[in-house]
Amino acid sequence: MSAKPPTSLDVARDAGVSQATVSYVLNNREGARISDETRARVQEAADRLGYVPHAGARTLRTGHSGLVLVPLADIPYGPLAVGLMEELDRELSRLGYSMIQYGARRLKGVAAARAWAELRPVAVLAPAERLTRQAVNVLHSAGIRAVIGIGAVGWSSEIVSTVTMDHEEIGATAAEHLLARGSRTLTAIIPTEDGLRDMGLLRAVGVQRVAAAHGVPYTQVDLAFSETATAARLDAWRAAGISGEGRTKHGVFAYNDDYAMLLMAVLADNGFAVPGNVAVVGCDDLPLAKLLRPRLTTVRLNVTDAPALLAQTLDEVVKEGVTRQPRLALWTHALVERDST
Amino acid sequence: MSAKPPTSLDVARDAGVSQATVSYVLNNREGARISDETRARVQEAADRLGYVPHAGARTLRTGHSGLVLVPLADIPYGPLAVGLMEELDRELSRLGYSMIQYGARRLKGVAAARAWAELRPVAVLAPAERLTRQAVNVLHSAGIRAVIGIGAVGWSSEIVSTVTMDHEEIGATAAEHLLARGSRTLTAIIPTEDGLRDMGLLRAVGVQRVAAAHGVPYTQVDLAFSETATAARLDAWRAAGISGEGRTKHGVFAYNDDYAMLLMAVLADNGFAVPGNVAVVGCDDLPLAKLLRPRLTTVRLNVTDAPALLAQTLDEVVKEGVTRQPRLALWTHALVERDST
Repeated sequence: MSAKPPTSLDVARDAGVSQATVSYVLNNREGARISDETRARVQEAADRLGYVPHAGARTLRTGHSGLVLVPLADIPYGPLAVGLMEELDRELSRLGYSMIQYGARRLKGVAAARAWAELRPVAVLAPAERLTRQAVNVLHSAGIRAVIGIGAVGWSSEIVSTVTMDHEEIGATAAEHLLARGSRTLTAIIPTEDGLRDMGLLRAVGVQRVAAAHGVPYTQVDLAFSETATAARLDAWRAAGISGEGRTKHGVFAYNDDYAMLLMAVLADNGFAVPGNVAVVGCDDLPLAKLLRPRLTTVRLNVTDAPALLAQTLDEVVKEGVTRQPRLALWTHALVERDST
Repeated sequence: MSAKPPTSLDVARDAGVSQATVSYVLNNREGARISDETRARVQEAADRLGYVPHAGARTLRTGHSGLVLVPLADIPYGPLAVGLMEELDRELSRLGYSMIQYGARRLKGVAAARAWAELRPVAVLAPAERLTRQAVNVLHSAGIRAVIGIGAVGWSSEIVSTVTMDHEEIGATAAEHLLARGSRTLTAIIPTEDGLRDMGLLRAVGVQRVAAAHGVPYTQVDLAFSETATAARLDAWRAAGISGEGRTKHGVFAYNDDYAMLLMAVLADNGFAVPGNVAVVGCDDLPLAKLLRPRLTTVRLNVTDAPALLAQTLDEVVKEGVTRQPRLALWTHALVERDST
């Protein structure tokens, strides 16, 4: 542990070959005539001594480090984001890259960009709001070839390629469905938690737009994830004429499946019929959606193709400096109709 | 983008100071008498030019890179693991480290260790099974000071400090509770999914141990996450005398809260009373546990202190080469009693 790290010269001595041969073998260079037996001996010596080529060696070989750096955001990661990252990692591996997710989430602006650049990644895939002009400048100056931003639809950048997330249309799709199934009012539930609230507001914009287009009453409800807060909300609804006995059907887009489950549990406890009095749409199509009674109608985000397309886009920017798809949607969405509407 | 990255000499020229001053300012060295005005000018020039000190500069300053590398495993990450990682990231930041999660999950053995070592982290925190003697050798030879393994209780290593996860006791705690609440048989559900199955088997060992100690019948059920598979299982239970009408109470530990929800939905659909005929215990205490009817009894993993302790342990090994806590439990657990048992 305290000894100096072994060098390629140590490996050469141990294997009884030249330093050039060690370099050929460990960097997988083509063209050199080296027997399998010699290759095996060099590899064994390297493993035994624990020789690690500097990242620089790999850079020389491929022209870049192969590292794709994805900064982690300071928000709760749900199953959708986690699944997306796993799939992206797989797709990047397939193309010869290694994905690293960078923590230290409180680092901001240029300081963050500088920390990422220190690892000499070949590409950075970051939330749009972190890619200020100065930060992008730092990344490009450090030789990073592809800087790709992820942002909401409407965000645009002249300086980097972009991947968009369309939250507004999720809300609009849920709202159109609720109206088609007979709802006479529309409500959007927005989580109060940090990091979720912004997405909730974007989804609510879609619900509000559809309500306005059809001339139906619209309500925005900011809701903490608790049964007490939800029950208090029901009291307010009752006061406003929404009740378990009324004949008007009320449509609620619940932000996501967890909030839909919370709402449905409290509605059932208080004698509201779903979907008779209140129709509920979630989002995500988590496993729990099918297990609720009634089974939950929800908006499913289809990310099947996104990681592969994203990896491919990134590879194009790394290799050619440009991409044929400067703007890529991270998901498509579709309504999954079940029994709660 | 194609221009050469700027050097500290470029920064010095731009700011009208010496290269030594640039180095003092950007490396935050103590002792040099440099005015705030000069410091600001150097910082501005560095930002404007996009100058990024090589990682080596930081290494010289602190004696190490400050990077803590955590390889990602090829298993689905649930909310517990994701939350743990987020908290660990925060704790490490507080101590001056930056956590990076390394993807490329298919890299194995020495090849994986070599890829991690290329980034010159100061510490690696990896699943125990990836830390073969050869891999650890590679990591230490590359100068990595702290190599910490995470493994199930019973796994031990002479070569690295360890963090343990005690799955067996989760099952045992659930089983003891089920017996105390009147169950006369015990069943452990084990998920068939890759990556979950191993944890399920460890938890089941605890259930089986308690069943044997109390002389009650024990059944292990391998279950895919589907209503059809679960319904088929209920038919088998009926054939074995477990039914919605019987007077014997059967206790089931359902591996986690998702499986508990699946089981409870199918039990209700088929006329079984929970907890009358079948008592159910989950694990994780997800938000959904409280929202189920009846509310779910579950085993809560308390990881509140673990990330802070882990970060501290890692810091000790980095600074002193040893730790006062060579063996650290990643969680404590406690039964949360609700209405399903």
